[in-house]
Amino acid sequence: MGPGTLASEDAMANAFELGRLIALEGWVLLTGGRDAGVMDAACRGAKKGGGLTVGILPGADVDGMSEAVDIPILTGMGQARNNINVLSSRVLFACGIGPGTASEIALALKAGKHVILLNCSNEGTVFFEALGKEKVFVASQPDEAITIAKRLISL
Amino acid sequence: MGPGTLASEDAMANAFELGRLIALEGWVLLTGGRDAGVMDAACRGAKKGGGLTVGILPGADVDGMSEAVDIPILTGMGQARNNINVLSSRVLFACGIGPGTASEIALALKAGKHVILLNCSNEGTVFFEALGKEKVFVASQPDEAITIAKRLISL
Amino acid sequence: MGPGTLASEDAMANAFELGRLIALEGWVLLTGGRDAGVMDAACRGAKKGGGLTVGILPGADVDGMSEAVDIPILTGMGQARNNINVLSSRVLFACGIGPGTASEIALALKAGKHVILLNCSNEGTVFFEALGKEKVFVASQPDEAITIAKRLISL
Amino acid sequence: MGPGTLASEDAMANAFELGRLIALEGWVLLTGGRDAGVMDAACRGAKKGGGLTVGILPGADVDGMSEAVDIPILTGMGQARNNINVLSSRVLFACGIGPGTASEIALALKAGKHVILLNCSNEGTVFFEALGKEKVFVASQPDEAITIAKRLISL
Repeated sequence: MGPGTLASEDAMANAFELGRLIALEGWVLLTGGRDAGVMDAACRGAKKGGGLTVGILPGADVDGMSEAVDIPILTGMGQARNNINVLSSRVLFACGIGPGTASEIALALKAGKHVILLNCSNEGTVFFEALGKEKVFVASQPDEAITIAKRLISL
Repeated sequence: MGPGTLASEDAMANAFELGRLIALEGWVLLTGGRDAGVMDAACRGAKKGGGLTVGILPGADVDGMSEAVDIPILTGMGQARNNINVLSSRVLFACGIGPGTASEIALALKAGKHVILLNCSNEGTVFFEALGKEKVFVASQPDEAITIAKRLISL
Repeated sequence: MGPGTLASEDAMANAFELGRLIALEGWVLLTGGRDAGVMDAACRGAKKGGGLTVGILPGADVDGMSEAVDIPILTGMGQARNNINVLSSRVLFACGIGPGTASEIALALKAGKHVILLNCSNEGTVFFEALGKEKVFVASQPDEAITIAKRLISL
Repeated sequence: MGPGTLASEDAMANAFELGRLIALEGWVLLTGGRDAGVMDAACRGAKKGGGLTVGILPGADVDGMSEAVDIPILTGMGQARNNINVLSSRVLFACGIGPGTASEIALALKAGKHVILLNCSNEGTVFFEALGKEKVFVASQPDEAITIAKRLISL
């Protein structure tokens, strides 16, 4: 999960590498599916790694979908689809921060899911650590995020 | 699409074969994902044919999911997820009839999608042909349904 | 519930009268809230009768909303909102028939709700009676629909 | 908006007073509708003030609903209903903080809505002010929150 058009270069670079590493683990990548920012970068990275990508789109058709999405799920329900992203994920990687991403982190904590933060702002990191306690992890690099995720999945 | 626990033996047999043929075409099978009736039969058929299966589940976890679902999408939104099934499908196959399936056929027609009926009741066939006109097709066998779908997709 | 732009004159006249009678019973009218067809007519009737109207809108803002809606609920989720209409209603009146209305009748039966049909097509009446059995009623006039609803609510 | 079972006494007291003041302004109060915490307190306050209350419930029936809800909207879609709360509100009051409330604040900012924080944590206030900039306001008392809301609505 991560911002679309407002994503930083760093967040997009990390998302691409994270997508690639997710694919190399043999995991399926699930994103919000749009052709922008972190979603698009992660999907492109996963395809570079030979992986499978699922996009849970806000719209009712494929307009604005990342070309690196293999399996589009068209919800037609706007940001309410963020809860589907969260429920369908084993572990949530949040790469960068924005209002949509913040809603997904919060919904994940509400659902009792683990969240791994990358490129989050200082304010966001402090807030989500206070909100989610032992459910929230901070990674400084994509490979560290993968290491954390592997440990969480094996619990 | 099709009934769960109330599905007829005929509808399930056709759903299994339809799933298998969908896989052989190289298509991805999308169903409601539950471990019952037409959904389960179609997913098992698709796995028999070496295909990929997506299940759009009504619940927030994998309880009651068909074991033949490869990619679970957990919506937590009950029957409101039927609209996602419809929007995410290129062509809708309805195998058997029940209230949930009827809602999916109706939502598909509302979204302007084509629907192919198999094992529908007489009353249902008459009603949906009147409601959907040139968007509704009736097949007597799974292979006939596939032939119709191939023609529709190539339009 | 009922068609929007494609509603017949008869269905709209009955919807207006039904809305008025619902208000006179002291009931709250819930519709899909759009400024078209049966939804708009029923809301206007309810206001004529001094009632309160709730509109469950498909969009994320009030564009296209009936002016006779008192309480707009903005879902931003398109036709997936039809399931909310159904779950939030004690009794469902379906006035006329079209794909959206058919999906609501089917979702109501799936949820175990009673449905009262007015101005339904012959094909629709036959189909929904077969599908919903003792949950489906047919009324020829708005006052007859109200009488049936009163009996159902008192059960 | 605000926490359920984990709401603080202060947040609930402010929610009750806020509900009462909302009613006195002649506004309709919309909450998540559950019989717990801030939702319940705000609804009870609104009824004390003679107002009208709408509850957008996560469940498919009225189990667990606040007795002070006049108009229950049953979504059956769990936390995905948080986006409906947000879209249907002119101004969002967040009273206290928790994962569900944080998701609603974030979704409100995503939708371009104004948010007024009451009883938010320090970490939450700092984060949401950074995230939402001129869309986020902080009030120390319910009457101050009402004053801010009146100014925003008149814009």
